[in-house]
Amino acid sequence: MKKIITLGEILLRLSTDVGKRLSQADQLDLNYGGAEANVSVSLSNFGYDVYFVSKVPDNPLGLAAERHLKTNGVRTEFLLKGGERLGTYYVESGIGARSSQVTYDRKNSSFSQIMSEEIEFDNIFKDADLFHITGITPALSPSLVELTLIALQKAKENGVTTSFDFNYRSKLWSHQEAAETMKLFLPYVDICFCGELDAIYLLGIDKASNSLENKDRLTYYYETIRKNYPNIQYLSSTFRDVLSASTNTLRGNLFAEGVLYQSKTYQIDHIVDRVGGGDAFVAGMLYGILESTPFKEAVTFATAASVLKHTILGDCNTFSPEEIKIFANQAPGKIVR
Amino acid sequence: MKKIITLGEILLRLSTDVGKRLSQADQLDLNYGGAEANVSVSLSNFGYDVYFVSKVPDNPLGLAAERHLKTNGVRTEFLLKGGERLGTYYVESGIGARSSQVTYDRKNSSFSQIMSEEIEFDNIFKDADLFHITGITPALSPSLVELTLIALQKAKENGVTTSFDFNYRSKLWSHQEAAETMKLFLPYVDICFCGELDAIYLLGIDKASNSLENKDRLTYYYETIRKNYPNIQYLSSTFRDVLSASTNTLRGNLFAEGVLYQSKTYQIDHIVDRVGGGDAFVAGMLYGILESTPFKEAVTFATAASVLKHTILGDCNTFSPEEIKIFANQAPGKIVR
Amino acid sequence: MKKIITLGEILLRLSTDVGKRLSQADQLDLNYGGAEANVSVSLSNFGYDVYFVSKVPDNPLGLAAERHLKTNGVRTEFLLKGGERLGTYYVESGIGARSSQVTYDRKNSSFSQIMSEEIEFDNIFKDADLFHITGITPALSPSLVELTLIALQKAKENGVTTSFDFNYRSKLWSHQEAAETMKLFLPYVDICFCGELDAIYLLGIDKASNSLENKDRLTYYYETIRKNYPNIQYLSSTFRDVLSASTNTLRGNLFAEGVLYQSKTYQIDHIVDRVGGGDAFVAGMLYGILESTPFKEAVTFATAASVLKHTILGDCNTFSPEEIKIFANQAPGKIVR
Amino acid sequence: MKKIITLGEILLRLSTDVGKRLSQADQLDLNYGGAEANVSVSLSNFGYDVYFVSKVPDNPLGLAAERHLKTNGVRTEFLLKGGERLGTYYVESGIGARSSQVTYDRKNSSFSQIMSEEIEFDNIFKDADLFHITGITPALSPSLVELTLIALQKAKENGVTTSFDFNYRSKLWSHQEAAETMKLFLPYVDICFCGELDAIYLLGIDKASNSLENKDRLTYYYETIRKNYPNIQYLSSTFRDVLSASTNTLRGNLFAEGVLYQSKTYQIDHIVDRVGGGDAFVAGMLYGILESTPFKEAVTFATAASVLKHTILGDCNTFSPEEIKIFANQAPGKIVR
Amino acid sequence: MKKIITLGEILLRLSTDVGKRLSQADQLDLNYGGAEANVSVSLSNFGYDVYFVSKVPDNPLGLAAERHLKTNGVRTEFLLKGGERLGTYYVESGIGARSSQVTYDRKNSSFSQIMSEEIEFDNIFKDADLFHITGITPALSPSLVELTLIALQKAKENGVTTSFDFNYRSKLWSHQEAAETMKLFLPYVDICFCGELDAIYLLGIDKASNSLENKDRLTYYYETIRKNYPNIQYLSSTFRDVLSASTNTLRGNLFAEGVLYQSKTYQIDHIVDRVGGGDAFVAGMLYGILESTPFKEAVTFATAASVLKHTILGDCNTFSPEEIKIFANQAPGKIVR
Amino acid sequence: MKKIITLGEILLRLSTDVGKRLSQADQLDLNYGGAEANVSVSLSNFGYDVYFVSKVPDNPLGLAAERHLKTNGVRTEFLLKGGERLGTYYVESGIGARSSQVTYDRKNSSFSQIMSEEIEFDNIFKDADLFHITGITPALSPSLVELTLIALQKAKENGVTTSFDFNYRSKLWSHQEAAETMKLFLPYVDICFCGELDAIYLLGIDKASNSLENKDRLTYYYETIRKNYPNIQYLSSTFRDVLSASTNTLRGNLFAEGVLYQSKTYQIDHIVDRVGGGDAFVAGMLYGILESTPFKEAVTFATAASVLKHTILGDCNTFSPEEIKIFANQAPGKIVR
Repeated sequence: MKKIITLGEILLRLSTDVGKRLSQADQLDLNYGGAEANVSVSLSNFGYDVYFVSKVPDNPLGLAAERHLKTNGVRTEFLLKGGERLGTYYVESGIGARSSQVTYDRKNSSFSQIMSEEIEFDNIFKDADLFHITGITPALSPSLVELTLIALQKAKENGVTTSFDFNYRSKLWSHQEAAETMKLFLPYVDICFCGELDAIYLLGIDKASNSLENKDRLTYYYETIRKNYPNIQYLSSTFRDVLSASTNTLRGNLFAEGVLYQSKTYQIDHIVDRVGGGDAFVAGMLYGILESTPFKEAVTFATAASVLKHTILGDCNTFSPEEIKIFANQAPGKIVR
Repeated sequence: MKKIITLGEILLRLSTDVGKRLSQADQLDLNYGGAEANVSVSLSNFGYDVYFVSKVPDNPLGLAAERHLKTNGVRTEFLLKGGERLGTYYVESGIGARSSQVTYDRKNSSFSQIMSEEIEFDNIFKDADLFHITGITPALSPSLVELTLIALQKAKENGVTTSFDFNYRSKLWSHQEAAETMKLFLPYVDICFCGELDAIYLLGIDKASNSLENKDRLTYYYETIRKNYPNIQYLSSTFRDVLSASTNTLRGNLFAEGVLYQSKTYQIDHIVDRVGGGDAFVAGMLYGILESTPFKEAVTFATAASVLKHTILGDCNTFSPEEIKIFANQAPGKIVR
Repeated sequence: MKKIITLGEILLRLSTDVGKRLSQADQLDLNYGGAEANVSVSLSNFGYDVYFVSKVPDNPLGLAAERHLKTNGVRTEFLLKGGERLGTYYVESGIGARSSQVTYDRKNSSFSQIMSEEIEFDNIFKDADLFHITGITPALSPSLVELTLIALQKAKENGVTTSFDFNYRSKLWSHQEAAETMKLFLPYVDICFCGELDAIYLLGIDKASNSLENKDRLTYYYETIRKNYPNIQYLSSTFRDVLSASTNTLRGNLFAEGVLYQSKTYQIDHIVDRVGGGDAFVAGMLYGILESTPFKEAVTFATAASVLKHTILGDCNTFSPEEIKIFANQAPGKIVR
Repeated sequence: MKKIITLGEILLRLSTDVGKRLSQADQLDLNYGGAEANVSVSLSNFGYDVYFVSKVPDNPLGLAAERHLKTNGVRTEFLLKGGERLGTYYVESGIGARSSQVTYDRKNSSFSQIMSEEIEFDNIFKDADLFHITGITPALSPSLVELTLIALQKAKENGVTTSFDFNYRSKLWSHQEAAETMKLFLPYVDICFCGELDAIYLLGIDKASNSLENKDRLTYYYETIRKNYPNIQYLSSTFRDVLSASTNTLRGNLFAEGVLYQSKTYQIDHIVDRVGGGDAFVAGMLYGILESTPFKEAVTFATAASVLKHTILGDCNTFSPEEIKIFANQAPGKIVR
Repeated sequence: MKKIITLGEILLRLSTDVGKRLSQADQLDLNYGGAEANVSVSLSNFGYDVYFVSKVPDNPLGLAAERHLKTNGVRTEFLLKGGERLGTYYVESGIGARSSQVTYDRKNSSFSQIMSEEIEFDNIFKDADLFHITGITPALSPSLVELTLIALQKAKENGVTTSFDFNYRSKLWSHQEAAETMKLFLPYVDICFCGELDAIYLLGIDKASNSLENKDRLTYYYETIRKNYPNIQYLSSTFRDVLSASTNTLRGNLFAEGVLYQSKTYQIDHIVDRVGGGDAFVAGMLYGILESTPFKEAVTFATAASVLKHTILGDCNTFSPEEIKIFANQAPGKIVR
Repeated sequence: MKKIITLGEILLRLSTDVGKRLSQADQLDLNYGGAEANVSVSLSNFGYDVYFVSKVPDNPLGLAAERHLKTNGVRTEFLLKGGERLGTYYVESGIGARSSQVTYDRKNSSFSQIMSEEIEFDNIFKDADLFHITGITPALSPSLVELTLIALQKAKENGVTTSFDFNYRSKLWSHQEAAETMKLFLPYVDICFCGELDAIYLLGIDKASNSLENKDRLTYYYETIRKNYPNIQYLSSTFRDVLSASTNTLRGNLFAEGVLYQSKTYQIDHIVDRVGGGDAFVAGMLYGILESTPFKEAVTFATAASVLKHTILGDCNTFSPEEIKIFANQAPGKIVR
C-alpha cells in the first residue's frame, strides 16, 4: 500500500440549510475540511495509507477534526495537538442564482501558528511515495511560507514525489504576494495543479491570444511553465463554468508528456455541495498518476470523481475507485435495483 | 364501490436524506411499500374497496406495515401475521447525475415463505371486480410461482378480471427463469403491463426493426402478444427516458381494441422520489379501465398520476382522481390561492 | 431616516416540507407574513423607519407575529392587540410540475374586525414619507373597504406619498366587487402596482391588440390609466412566466414620466419559496423611488430583489441594498471565498 | 367483534418541541385528537369495530384528521365532510415546574355547526353495543346540547349501552351552564365518568366532610348520584396529583355494584405527553366493562393504559391489551431483549 | 417607559443536542447571549426601553446577534459594527450526573477590542434610569477595565442608577486580578449582585463562622460590604445547590434597608437549559427595584423568573411579568385549558 | 501501546426518538454496536491498539459498521467482508415506567456464518496483550461455539490474557444450552464477567442463603467459581437496580486476590441510552487491570465509565480516562466554564 503525506489546515465548517440565511439560522451543520485534508480523505478512500500532518487544539473540536480523519481511514499519528483554536468558517449555502457566501473566522488557529521545528519531517517522509500540499498553507502566515518550502525540500531529499495545488484565495493574500511566494516552491514540485489564471496572474506568463480555443491556450501556458520548471512532470486543472449555484459545467485537463488530455465536459445539475469539488479532482488525478492509468482515462476518472462529489454533502469525496469508474462509464441517474 | 384484490409483498424501506450516503447516514426515513401494495394504496385513494393479501411478521414492523395500509384505507382483513421478518431495503437517494442505490435485505421474509394453503382464495375473490399481481412475487421463491398461478386461476374461476405487471427485476432472477415463468401466467391475464424489453427478452418476440418509430415498434409487439394470448384485453406500458436522477421524461401507452393510445411526453424535473412511479401509472390505468374512461383520456390520467407521484416522498400516490384530472389539464406550477 | 407607514394583515403561515403533502405531514414550518407586512420587513432591511399598522390577538401567536416584525426592525407601536384570532394559512409546498396548494383559515381574524376608530391616523401619518397598502385589505370585509379609503385620504391630507398594490385574489372576492372598490381608491394613489389583467378586468380598459408586443400593450394600459388618474405618478408590475413550481421567469416594469422601463428577463431556477416574491419587488421599487434612483436602475434593483427572495424560505426579503446591487451586477452562483 | 359508536369533535393540535415557547417556535408538530376521537382510537386498538361520528372540512386538514382515524382502524363511514374549518389548538409543551399552555382556535369549526338532521342515528346505532360521548360536545354550542341529548335518547331507543364523560372545561362554559345541561343527559347514561369536583359543582351534591379519606368521600358522591340516577350502572374517575408537568400520580376508581374499586397509585415520572391521558383511562375502563373483566382488574387495566399513554407523544393510546396487561404486571423499565 | 442601558459582550453560542458529545455532533443549535445581553432581553420583555451598548463584527454573525436583540425589543442604536469576529462558545449539554462542558473561542472578539472613545456615553446616558454591567466585561482585557470604570463614572455623573453583577469566571482571570479590579468599581455601584464566595475571595472579607446558618452568614457579608461601600443600596444573590445537571435547588436573596429577604427554595427538576438562569434572576430583581415592589415579593419574582428560564432553551428569559407572577403563585405543572 | 483483540458481531441498531413507537415512527436513528465492538471502541478511546475481528457484508451497511469502528480508532485489518447481511435490531426507546422494546432481525448475518478457517488466529494474536469475547457469540450458532473455543485456546497458546463476559441473552438460547457451552470456555479464561444469576443458572452453583447480604452472596459465588476454575484471576459484575427506564442504580464489583472490591452505588437519573452500559463497565474494568490500578480505584473507574455512558446516545462509551476520573471525583452536574 502506497504511503502518502499531506500537510495543511483542517477547519470546522458550519453550514446553513438550503434556503436559510446565516443571520436567520438557528441550526448549523458541522463538517470538517480543508484542501489538503479533503485530498487525504479521498486518497484514503482510494485505498492508500495517508498521513495528514497538521495541528489542532487539544479540545473537543480538535478531537472532532481528528475523528473525521480517522472515520475515513486517514492516519493521525502526525496530527499535533495544541495551540489556541480550530480555524472555522461559515457557509450560507447558495442555490440557483444566489451564490454561497463564506464568512471566515480562521485567524490565530493552532495550525497557523505551527512551527517547523514541531514536525519530524525525516521520520514522516521515510518510505513515502507522495507528498501533497497547496497554496492555501503559505497564504496563512510568513512562517508557513517557510514551512511549505522546508516541507517540499525535505520531501525531495527523501525521494518523495511532490504535488502542489496553487489554490489561490483572494481573501487570504494579493496576487503579488502569492506570485512571489509560489515561485519559491515550484522548483521542488513534480505534479502541479495550476489553471489559466494562475499562469497569468501568479506566474506572469503573457496572456494567450483570445482567438485561440481554450484548450490551445492552456497548452501554451503549460508548455511555458514546463520550459521554466522542467522538473514539473504533470500539470493539471479544470475548466469550470458557473451557470448558477446549482448548475456548473466541468472539464478536466492533464498535461503529460507534452500532450494535453481532456475529459468530456460534464454538466452538473442539482449541485448539493460544491465545496471540496476541486480537491476531489486533485485526489482523482493523483490516483491516476500513482496507478499509472492511461492519461485520457486518468483525467476522466478525476473529473468523474469531482462530479460525484458535487452530489453529496460535506467537503469530502467518499466514493471508491470502483464507484467512480462505474459512474464514468454509465448513463446517469438510473436506479440500480 | 368496486372490490379489488391485490397480492404481493410489502417491504420496509429505509432511505437516506438527499446528499447523504448510506455509509455515512445517522438517520433514515421509514416508508412501507412494494409494487402491489403501492397499487393498492393508490386504488384505495381513488375510492375503491381494496384488499391487500400478504403476510407480515407479528412484530412492530409488521404492525407498522399494516398501519400504513390502513391509513390509506386499504383493507387488511386478509393480511396474515407470522413468519420471521419483514423484507427490508435501503435506498441511498440519488440526485442529478448520481443514481439512487438500492441495498436489498429481503431474504427469508414472512411473505416469501407464505404457503398457498394459508390463503382462502374463494372467500377473498367472492364478488371481487379486479385482481392485480406482479412479476415480483413469483421471482421471490418457487412456491410463490405456484401461488401466483393458483391465484390467477382462482380469480378467473370466480369471474374476476385479472391484471398482471411484468415488473422484471434483474437482481431477483435471470431473463430465462422469468421467461419460463411468465408464460405460465399469461393465459389467465386480462390486463397486462409489459414493455418493449419484456416482449423481447421474456416473451421471445423477434425484435422490431430499429427503423420503426418506437410507437410503431410497440404496436408490433403488442399485436404479436395479442395473437399469442387473445385473452389479454389491454396492454400497457410507459416510455421513460432517464436524463438524470432528477430529470426523466415519461409517456404512457395503452393498447386497446387494436389501437395504441399515448399520452403526451411529460418532462419530470426536480424528481423528489421516483420509487413507486410505475405503480402509480398502473393504478391510474386500472382506474381508467374500471371507469370505462375513453382510452386517450385514460392513458393521460395514468401518466399524470405517475408524474405527480414523482413530486412526493414515499412509494405511494396519494392524489385523488380530482387532483390528477386538474393537474392533467392545467399549466404546471401555479400557486393556487 | 425616512418614515414609512404600512397597513394590512399579518398571518401565520404553516408550510409542509418539500415533497410532503399537508394531509400526511407530521410537522409544519412556521412563518409570519402578509403582503403589507412583507413590504414592511423588506423596507426596514433597506434602512427605513417602517411602522406596521394592524391588529393581532393578545395571545402567543399574536406575540409571535409581533416578534417577527421586530426581528426585522419594523416598528410595532401601532400594532393593536385584541380580537379573536390570527388569520392562518397552510401551504403544501409545490415542486417541479406540482403547484403549491394554499388552504386558507383566515376568517374572523382580529385584523378583519378592526374598526377605523381604533387607528390614530393623524398621529401615525405625522412626518411620514410614504404610505403603502394593498388590495387584499379591502377584500377582507366591507368595513375594511372603508378603512382603506380613510387611510388613503388621511395620508394625502397629511402630505404623505401613497402606494397601492392591486394584489387581486380570486379566493377573496369577485372581479366585479374588486373593480367597484378599487376605483374608490385610485384618486388618492401616487404609486400604483397594477398589471395587465388588473387593467382589463378591474379597471375595464379595452383589451390591447394581441398583435402588439407585451411591452407595448402594457404601455397602452398604463397610458390609459394615467389619463383617467393623472394623480398616479408611477405604475409598476412584473411579467412572470410560470414554467413550473421550481422555474419561473421574471421581468420588472416601471412606467414613469411617460416611459416604460424594464429590467432584463431573469430565469429563476430551483425556486425555494415563491411566496412574497411580489412583495419583494414592490419594496424594491419603492426603494428606487424613495432614493430617486434612475428608472432603469430602479426597476432592475426591484426585480433582482424579487429574484433573490425566491432563493430563501419565508415570506420576507432580508437582503440589504448592497447585497441586491452586487447580485444585480454579477454572474450568478459563484462561491465568494 | 363489538360495534362502538362515538360522537364528538376532532381537532388539529399543533405543539412546540420541549423547551421552546410558542411565540419563538419555527416548527410545530401536528397531531389530531379530541376526547371522543381519542377514546375511539384506543378502543379500535383494543380490537373493537369503532365508528366515529363527526364533521370535518372538505380540505387537506379534514382529510388528515380522517387519515389519522383510519391509521388506527377507526371507521369513518359516518364522518361528514363540509363546513368551514377544523378546530385547532396550540400546545406550548410544559416541563418540570412549567405547565403546558393551551391556546385555542376552535370557534366556528365544522363540527360546532353540525345539524342533528345530518346524522342518521338509527342507521348508526343499529346493532351497536356501546355509545360514548363527552361533556365537551354540548359545551361547544346550544345546538350541540340538543344533538347530545338526541344522540343519547336514540342510543337508548336502539338498545345501546351509553357512556358519558363529564370532561368539564372551564374555558368553554361556566359551572352553572354546565350543571343545567349535564342534568338533561344523565337519565340516559349507563356508564358515567365523573369526578369529585363534578359531583359538587355540576351536580350540586353537598360536599363530603374533609375528615373523610378521599376514597370514602368519592364513595359518598357516587352513592348519592346512584340514588338520583339509578340508571347509571358504573361510575368512574381518577385521582390525579400534579406534582409538576413532568411528574404526576394517578389512581383509578370504579364504582360498580355498590363498591368502589381502586387501582394502586402510580407515580408517572418523565411525562412525555399528558394530553389524552384521561381518554386512555376511559377507553381502558370501557374495555374492562365490555369484556366483563373482574372490577379490580378492570380499574387496574384502565389506569395502566393511562400511565402508558403518558410515555408517548400524541393524544392517543396505541398500546394493545396485551401490552397493557404485561405493563400492569411487571417491574417498570426493564429492557426486553 | 423607563430607559435602561447595558454594556457588555454578546456571544454566539453553539450547543449540542441532549445526549450528543461535541466531538461527535453533526449539527449544533445557535443562540446568542452574554450576561448583559441576557439581562437586556429580559428587561425588554418586562416592558422597558433597553439599549444594549456593544460591538459586533460587520458580518452575518454580527447581524444575527443584532437581530436576536431586536426580536426581543432591545434597542441597537448603540451597537457598533466592526472589528474582527464575534466571540463564540460551544456547549456540550449535560444531563443527569454529567455536567455541561463549555469550550470557549472568544479571544480577539470585536467587543474585546472596543475603545472607550467609540462610545458616546453622555448621549447614551441622557435621561436613562438604570445602567447595568457585569464583571465579565473587565475580565476580557485591560482596556475593558478602564471602559467599565468610565462607564460607571459617566452613569453616576448623569444621575443614572448603576447595577453591577460580579459574575466571576475562573477561566477568564484569577481571584487576585478580579479582586483588585472589582474594588475600583464598587464606589460607583448602587445595586450589587454578589455572593458569599465573592465576598470572601474578591472582597477579602473574613469568612463567617460555619456554625452560622447560611442566611446569617450572608447577612454578615452584606452588612460588611455595606460598611465599606455605603453607596450600595441593594445587595442580591442566589443560593444554588447543584444536585445534578438536571436538578438544582434555587433560593433568591435581597438585602435592602438592612434586612435580608429571601424567596422560598425551589427545586428545579428536568432542567432544559441552565445557561442564563442567573441573568434572569438579575433582571427579575432589577424589575422589582424599578417597580418598587415590596422586597419579599421582589425576591420571589426574581427567583421565579430564574426558575422559569431553566425550562426553556436559549440564554434568555422571554416570560412576561404576568406569566412570572402567575407562576410564582400557582401549583406547578397544571395544563391550562 | 498495548495490543488488544476482540471478536464478535457488530450490528446495525435502528432506534426511535423518545416518545415514539416503532409502529408509528417515520424516522429512525442509526447506530452500530455489539458487546465486543462496544468494548473495543471504549478501549480504543482509552488509548489502546484494539483490533476487532468479525465479518460484515460487502455493502454500504458493512462499510458503515467499519467506518464506525475506524472513527473510534479501532483497527479493522481483521474485519472480513462478505456473506449475506448485517445483523439488525430495532429499539423502541423506553422512558419512565415504559421499558425499551427490542425487535431483533439478526438471523443469517454474515458474522453468524463466519467459518473458523477464515480467521488467521496466529497472526492476530501475535504480540497481543488481551483477548476479549462474550457469551453472545457462541449463542448465535453451533459453529460459533467451536469458533469461540478455538479462539480462546489459540489466545492462550499465544500467551494472551483472556477476558470473557457471560452476557446471557434469553432470546438467543436456553439456560441449559448456555450452561453446557459456557463450561467449555471457562478453563481458558483469565478475567471473567459473571453475575449472581449466571453463577446459579449457568454454572449450577447452589443458591446462597437469602439472609446474606448481596455482597456476601456474591463473594460466596465467586469463591466457588474460583475453586472450580482456579485459572480465573478476576471476577467482576455489577448490581443494577432498575427503578424505571429513566432511573437505575449501579454498583460495580471486582473480586481479586480473594477480596470483593465495590464501588459506591450510583443513582443514574435521566438515562439517555442504557444500551452499552454494561460494555462500558467491562472496558473500564479491563483498563484498570491492564493499568494495574489499585482494585478499589479500578472498580470505581469502571462504574463511573458505565454511569457516564448512560448519559449519551449510542452504544459506545467515548469518554477518555481523564474525563472518567474527573467525573468519579467531582460533584455531579456543574457547568464548567
